[in-house]
Amino acid sequence: MRKICVVVHSRANYGRIKTLMQAVDKHPDLELQLLVGSSALIHRFGSVIDIIRKEGFSEAAVVYSILEGETPTTMAKSTGLAIIELATQFENLKPDVVVTVADRFETLATAVAASYMNIPVAHTQGGEVTGSIDESVRHAITKLSHLHFAATLRAKEYLLKMGENAEDVYLTGCPAIDVVANLDVTLPPDFFEKYKGVGDQLSTEKDYLVVLQHPVTTEYGSGLAQINETLKAVKEFADKGMQVAWLWPNVDAGSDDIAKGIRQFREHNDATNMHFYINFEPEDYVRLIANSKCLIGNSSSGLREGAYLGTPTVNIGNRQAGRERAANVIDVDYDAAKISEAIYYQLSHGRYPSSTLVGDGTAGQQIADLLATCEIRLQKELSYIHQTDE
Amino acid sequence: MRKICVVVHSRANYGRIKTLMQAVDKHPDLELQLLVGSSALIHRFGSVIDIIRKEGFSEAAVVYSILEGETPTTMAKSTGLAIIELATQFENLKPDVVVTVADRFETLATAVAASYMNIPVAHTQGGEVTGSIDESVRHAITKLSHLHFAATLRAKEYLLKMGENAEDVYLTGCPAIDVVANLDVTLPPDFFEKYKGVGDQLSTEKDYLVVLQHPVTTEYGSGLAQINETLKAVKEFADKGMQVAWLWPNVDAGSDDIAKGIRQFREHNDATNMHFYINFEPEDYVRLIANSKCLIGNSSSGLREGAYLGTPTVNIGNRQAGRERAANVIDVDYDAAKISEAIYYQLSHGRYPSSTLVGDGTAGQQIADLLATCEIRLQKELSYIHQTDE
Amino acid sequence: MRKICVVVHSRANYGRIKTLMQAVDKHPDLELQLLVGSSALIHRFGSVIDIIRKEGFSEAAVVYSILEGETPTTMAKSTGLAIIELATQFENLKPDVVVTVADRFETLATAVAASYMNIPVAHTQGGEVTGSIDESVRHAITKLSHLHFAATLRAKEYLLKMGENAEDVYLTGCPAIDVVANLDVTLPPDFFEKYKGVGDQLSTEKDYLVVLQHPVTTEYGSGLAQINETLKAVKEFADKGMQVAWLWPNVDAGSDDIAKGIRQFREHNDATNMHFYINFEPEDYVRLIANSKCLIGNSSSGLREGAYLGTPTVNIGNRQAGRERAANVIDVDYDAAKISEAIYYQLSHGRYPSSTLVGDGTAGQQIADLLATCEIRLQKELSYIHQTDE
Amino acid sequence: MRKICVVVHSRANYGRIKTLMQAVDKHPDLELQLLVGSSALIHRFGSVIDIIRKEGFSEAAVVYSILEGETPTTMAKSTGLAIIELATQFENLKPDVVVTVADRFETLATAVAASYMNIPVAHTQGGEVTGSIDESVRHAITKLSHLHFAATLRAKEYLLKMGENAEDVYLTGCPAIDVVANLDVTLPPDFFEKYKGVGDQLSTEKDYLVVLQHPVTTEYGSGLAQINETLKAVKEFADKGMQVAWLWPNVDAGSDDIAKGIRQFREHNDATNMHFYINFEPEDYVRLIANSKCLIGNSSSGLREGAYLGTPTVNIGNRQAGRERAANVIDVDYDAAKISEAIYYQLSHGRYPSSTLVGDGTAGQQIADLLATCEIRLQKELSYIHQTDE
Repeated sequence: MRKICVVVHSRANYGRIKTLMQAVDKHPDLELQLLVGSSALIHRFGSVIDIIRKEGFSEAAVVYSILEGETPTTMAKSTGLAIIELATQFENLKPDVVVTVADRFETLATAVAASYMNIPVAHTQGGEVTGSIDESVRHAITKLSHLHFAATLRAKEYLLKMGENAEDVYLTGCPAIDVVANLDVTLPPDFFEKYKGVGDQLSTEKDYLVVLQHPVTTEYGSGLAQINETLKAVKEFADKGMQVAWLWPNVDAGSDDIAKGIRQFREHNDATNMHFYINFEPEDYVRLIANSKCLIGNSSSGLREGAYLGTPTVNIGNRQAGRERAANVIDVDYDAAKISEAIYYQLSHGRYPSSTLVGDGTAGQQIADLLATCEIRLQKELSYIHQTDE
Repeated sequence: MRKICVVVHSRANYGRIKTLMQAVDKHPDLELQLLVGSSALIHRFGSVIDIIRKEGFSEAAVVYSILEGETPTTMAKSTGLAIIELATQFENLKPDVVVTVADRFETLATAVAASYMNIPVAHTQGGEVTGSIDESVRHAITKLSHLHFAATLRAKEYLLKMGENAEDVYLTGCPAIDVVANLDVTLPPDFFEKYKGVGDQLSTEKDYLVVLQHPVTTEYGSGLAQINETLKAVKEFADKGMQVAWLWPNVDAGSDDIAKGIRQFREHNDATNMHFYINFEPEDYVRLIANSKCLIGNSSSGLREGAYLGTPTVNIGNRQAGRERAANVIDVDYDAAKISEAIYYQLSHGRYPSSTLVGDGTAGQQIADLLATCEIRLQKELSYIHQTDE
Repeated sequence: MRKICVVVHSRANYGRIKTLMQAVDKHPDLELQLLVGSSALIHRFGSVIDIIRKEGFSEAAVVYSILEGETPTTMAKSTGLAIIELATQFENLKPDVVVTVADRFETLATAVAASYMNIPVAHTQGGEVTGSIDESVRHAITKLSHLHFAATLRAKEYLLKMGENAEDVYLTGCPAIDVVANLDVTLPPDFFEKYKGVGDQLSTEKDYLVVLQHPVTTEYGSGLAQINETLKAVKEFADKGMQVAWLWPNVDAGSDDIAKGIRQFREHNDATNMHFYINFEPEDYVRLIANSKCLIGNSSSGLREGAYLGTPTVNIGNRQAGRERAANVIDVDYDAAKISEAIYYQLSHGRYPSSTLVGDGTAGQQIADLLATCEIRLQKELSYIHQTDE
Repeated sequence: MRKICVVVHSRANYGRIKTLMQAVDKHPDLELQLLVGSSALIHRFGSVIDIIRKEGFSEAAVVYSILEGETPTTMAKSTGLAIIELATQFENLKPDVVVTVADRFETLATAVAASYMNIPVAHTQGGEVTGSIDESVRHAITKLSHLHFAATLRAKEYLLKMGENAEDVYLTGCPAIDVVANLDVTLPPDFFEKYKGVGDQLSTEKDYLVVLQHPVTTEYGSGLAQINETLKAVKEFADKGMQVAWLWPNVDAGSDDIAKGIRQFREHNDATNMHFYINFEPEDYVRLIANSKCLIGNSSSGLREGAYLGTPTVNIGNRQAGRERAANVIDVDYDAAKISEAIYYQLSHGRYPSSTLVGDGTAGQQIADLLATCEIRLQKELSYIHQTDE
C-alpha cells in the first residue's frame, strides 16, 4: 500500500492532476494524501480549495506559502517558504511517493523538499519546452525526480537525452487530456451565470473568444506593455459584438502588471461584451475553451487541451516558445495588429481536427497503475556513464 | 563593471572558490560582493568566516540559515530558509551575476533564488557525476544556471548532452586546483599545533593518514555502521604507530551518526596516534593531504586535489560513484577488511604522478576574465530544439 | 555616536515616525539606519517606499515579509517571517537602538528580533488602550521594550502600572502630531488630482467626508457586514451631494472582506461623489482630514491627529475601545442608522478646538535628544519587586 | 468538547506540563492535541520526543524549528520560524485553546501564533520574576495570553497589577510540583546506569551533587567565564570524593560557551567522580535532585521542585534574580570561592522542610478542570480602564 502525496498549488495544477488523484483514490493498492497550498488557497485566485472539497477530496493539510508582492524577489521567497512548510508536512505524513506537476515555483519547492528527504518524486509534464523561468525550473525538477510521466513522445525523448534512465521514464500522456476526453462539453444555458467576475454578462447563445495571458517572468517589467497589445486587439472584436471571456492570470512575478493593465483598460475604455473571470472549475474551463471561437494569450491550455479539442488558438509571445503544438495554433508577437490578424484567420478557419499529441484520455489511470507497481530507484545516476559509444 | 556575488557556505566551498574570489576582487571590470552563510558561520564546523576575514575579504553580509537536527527534513528546511534569506540579500545587493559552487543544499538555494530573480547564475563543478543526493542537486543547479565553468572535459561534454547551449559552457578546470598548483606544500614544523581538536598530538616528523568521511544522504540511517568500518580499519594502522588526522564531516543529514560513531569509538577504544580536527584553512588542508601517506574516506578532495597532488587515495562507498578519477584512487566498499587492504596497497605504492584532469591551476583567473566579458542569455533554451538530426 | 535603526512597515507607520527619523538624521550624535518592509513595499498599499525615497531618506535595506491571504494565519506567519528577516538585518547593521512604532504585527516582529539579540528597543505609542489584537500586541511590545516614549499622560501612567521602571518611561507626545503642528494645511487646488484611485473626481472647492475603516482582527469574519453598514450610511450623504474620500484599509486579517465590500458596493450601486484612494503622503493625509467636514471609520487618526486638528470624528465599533479621546469624537456601533445620525451631528457641530492630548508638535526632536543621551538598561526588571508597600 | 493543544519544546517544558497533559487526556470534556518541537526533537538535547512517546502520548505533529548557531541572532530566527510552523499546525488542528509553558522563545512563538489566529492562549508560570531575556519574554507572553494559571500567590498578584483581568487569573500552583508530590523518590540501584553520558560512573550508594547551569542570554559572551567559576568550585568537592552529576544546558544563545567550558575542563583536568548527562526523564530528574546533597547552578528547578523537596540549593548569578524562593536557596555571585563556601554551608545544613510555595501537587488536574469549563474572553482589555481611582 503506497502512500501517494499529491500537492495542489493552483487552478491549472488541479485540472492537470485531478484524474490522477481520482485514480489513486480508487486504487486498491494506493492511498491518497492531499496537500493544498499557494494560490489554491487565495481568494483573489478563486479559492480552488473550495472546488477541490466540493468534488469530494479531503486535504491532509493546507499550507499558506505565497508572499505578497508578485515580484521576482517574492517568487523566490515563496519557493523557500513552500520548501520549509512542505518538509514539515512530509515529515509527518511520511509518503512513499510525492507527485509534482509541471514547472511552477511550488512544483520546484515540492521536488526539492521531497528529494532531500529521500522521498521519491514523480513528475508530470517533464521534458517539455517553453520560454519563461518555467523552462529552467521544469528541467531542474526533472533532475530531482525519480519517476517521469511524459505527456508527449518528444518530451520522453528529451528526458532520455537529458540523462534520465529509460526505466524511469514513461509515456502516459497528460492527465489534463483525461478531463477533456471524458467530458460532455455542451455548455449549459446558465454557464456564465455560475461564475462571478466583473463586466458585461455573457450569453451561451452567442459566439465568444477566451483570453488568458500570464506574465512572462523572464521579461519582468514588460507585462503592462504586452497586455496592452492584447487588450487593444481583442477590443476590436468586442466592439464589433464578439463576446470575450477574459481570465485572470496566475500569481507570478508580473501578475500585478497584467492586473493593472486590465484595470486601467476597464477604467478608460468601454468594455462592452467583455467579462473578466477569476476562476473556472476544471471541467468548466474545458467547456469554455471547447466552445470558444478562438483562445488567445499565452496559456499552455491552447497547446494542450486545445490540441485535443481542436480549438483555434492564437499564441502570443515567448511563454510557450519551443513547445510542441498541433495544427490549431498560430504564433504571433506582442503586437496588436498581428494578434488581430491572427484572430481573424482563426475565426474564419474554425475548429481543427482533434489531436492526441498530448494524451488520449487515459493518463491518470496509467500513472496510478504505474505508481502502484513500478520499481523506484532512490539514488539517481546520469545515464551517460553507462553509455559506451557516445 | 559587473557586480559578481559569491556565496560561501562551507569549508569545502571556500577552498574551491577562493582563487576566483581573489581574481574577481582584483579585476578592473568586476566588483566582488561576498555573502557568507550556512556552516561557514558555525563554531562546530570551524567558523570558516574567521579564516575568510583573516585572508582579507570583507563580507557584504552574513546569513544564518541552517536548522539544527541534521536529518533529511532539516536539510530540506535549511534549503528553504537559505532561499528566503538570499533573495533578500540579492534584492538589496543587486548583483549582475551570482556564482554558486558545486552541489550542496546551499548551492541549490543560491541558484533557485537568483534564477527566479532574473539574476544570471554561474556554476562551477557542473556536469560531474557522483552518488548521494548531490548527484540530483548538481544537475538541477545546471538546469537553473546560465554560465557553466566545467572542471573536466567529460563534465563539459555531459553539460552539452544535458541540453545546455555550447556558448554558455566553458572548460576552465576547478579553482580548487589553483590553490594546489600555486602552493608551497611543505609542512611547517608547528603545523599540527596550529589546529585545535581532540586526541593525541600529531608530529610532522612522522608519517600520517588523513581520514574524511561524510554521510551519504541517500543512505541516511546507515552512517553509523559505515563509519564504524572505517574506524576499525584505520585503528589497525594507528595501533601499529601510524598517525591519523581525522576530519569532522560536513553538516548534512547523517552527520550526527558519523559524529556519534567517532565519539563512541573514542569512549570505548584506545585512540592512540589519532587526532580529530574540525577545520583547516584551505591551503593547510592541501598541505595536509599533499604530505599524507594516504587519504581515506569519501571526500571529493581525493579525486580532485588528490589527482593533482598524486595523493594515494582509498575511496569508500558510493558517495563518489561515477566521478572521474585519476590513477591515484582505489575504490572499496564499506568493509573494514577491504578498506584495510586498500590502505596497505596505497602505502606500499606511494605517491602517484600529478594529473591535470580537474584543472591546471588557472581556473580562477579564467573564470573571472570570462565573467567580465562573456555574453549572458537570461532566457534559457534546451539545445535539442535547435538540433536537426536527433 | 549611536546607530538608531528605524523600521518602517506601512503608511500609518511612516507618518508617525517621520519627524523622529528627520531628527535622528540631523542629530550630530546619531546615525539613522532605515529598514523598509511589509506593506510599505506593496503596490496595492501605495508603495510607501516611493514616498520615503522622494522625501530624501535612503533605506539600508528593503525586506519583503507579508504572506498573501490576509487571514489570521497569514498574519501570524508574516510576523514570523519578519522576525527571521529583521534578525539578519540587525546582525549585519548592528544598531545600538531599534525604534518600533505602535502595535502592528511588524512592530511586534521588530521588538522580538531586537530584544532576543540584546539590542535595546525603543517603543512609541506604548501604554495606550484600544480593541483588536493590537491591544494585546501593544502591551507585549511594551514588555519587550527598554525605552518607552509615551504619547499621553495616561499612557505613561499605564506603562508605570504595568511594571515598567520610571527611569525608562518618557512623556514626549506622539511624532504624528509634529507633522500636524508644523504644517500649512491649506489644500492646493489640484490636491485630489495628485492621487490616483477609482471613482468620481473630487474637488477641493466642495465639502467632503473622509472614511477609513480597518478590519478588526479579533472580529475576523464580520468585516463584510461591518463595512456594509458604513457604506450604507455614507452613501446617504453622497447621494445628497456630499463628496467622499474613502481610503483603502491596512493589510490585516480581514482586509479582503473590507475590500470585497467596497468592490461589491461599487458594482451594485451608483457611487457618485465617491472616490477610493490607496494612499496619501503623510502631510497630505493630514491636510485631507484637516479640511474634511467629518472623519468616519475606526482609524486612530481621528483620535490622534484629529484631536489636535479638531476634526469632527465618528468612531465606529470596537477597534479604538478604551483609547483616550478629546471632545471631537463620537462613538457609534456598526449600525448604519446610528452612523448616519452621528455624521449629521458632527456636520452641524463643525470643527472642535485643538487639543494637545496626544502631543504638542515637538515629539520627534525630544525623542531624538533622549536617544542620544539616555542611559539604557538591557536587563529588564519588573518594577514591583522594588516596591515595598503595595 | 474543547480541543486543548499543548506545545512541548524541551526537556524542562515537558516536566512542567506533563501532569496537565495527562489530566487533559483523561478528561471527558477535553481532547489533547500534542505538538512537539524545538530542542525536544534534537539528539544532543536528549530526544525528549522518545520519552514522551514511551510515556504513552502520541503527537499530532513534530516541528523542527531551531536554527543552528546558538547566538542571539539564531535565537531570534528560531522564534520566527517556530511562529511560521506553529501557525500552519494551528490552522490544520483548529484547537480551542493553546497551552504554552513559562518563558522561552518557543513559548513566545506559540503565544504569538495563537493570539494572532484568535485562538485563546493559556499560560503557566506567568507573573514570576527572573533575570535574563526570559524576564521580558514571560511578561510579553502574559500580555498575549487569555488565561493565566499562576504558580504562586505573588505571581497572581503581579499578573493583576500588570493589568490582567481578575476573572482570567487562577492560582493553581505549578504542574511541575505534581510530579514531585506524587512520586516515590527512592533511587533504584541502577539509576545512574540507565542514562548515558560521559565521565565516571556514579553510584547511588554514595552522596552526590547535581549541577545545572544555563547561559544567561542578556549576558551573552560571559558564559565561558561564568561556567569556569562553577567548574572550579565543584571540582574541589569532586577531588575530595563527592560524586557530581552535571547536566547539559538548554539550547539558548550562549549554550556553546557553556559546552565549550565543560569540554575544555574535561580535556585539561582530571574529572574523577564527575559524570555529564544530557537528559533525564522528568520523574528521574526529580529523583535525582530529591536525593542529591545539593543542587548547584541557575536552574529554576532548585527554586521550584527544590522548594517542595527541600533540596539545599546554591543559586549562582542573575538568571533567577527576583524570583520567589523558599528557605532552601542560597544566592551567590559567579565566584568560585563564594560558590564553594555556599556548597559547604548547604552540605552541613542538610535537607530543608518542604514548602508548597510553588504548588501542592494538584495543579495539572485543577488546570484541566478549568480549561473544560472556564469562560474565555478573546478580546483582551487592560484592567486599568475599569478602575475608578488610580
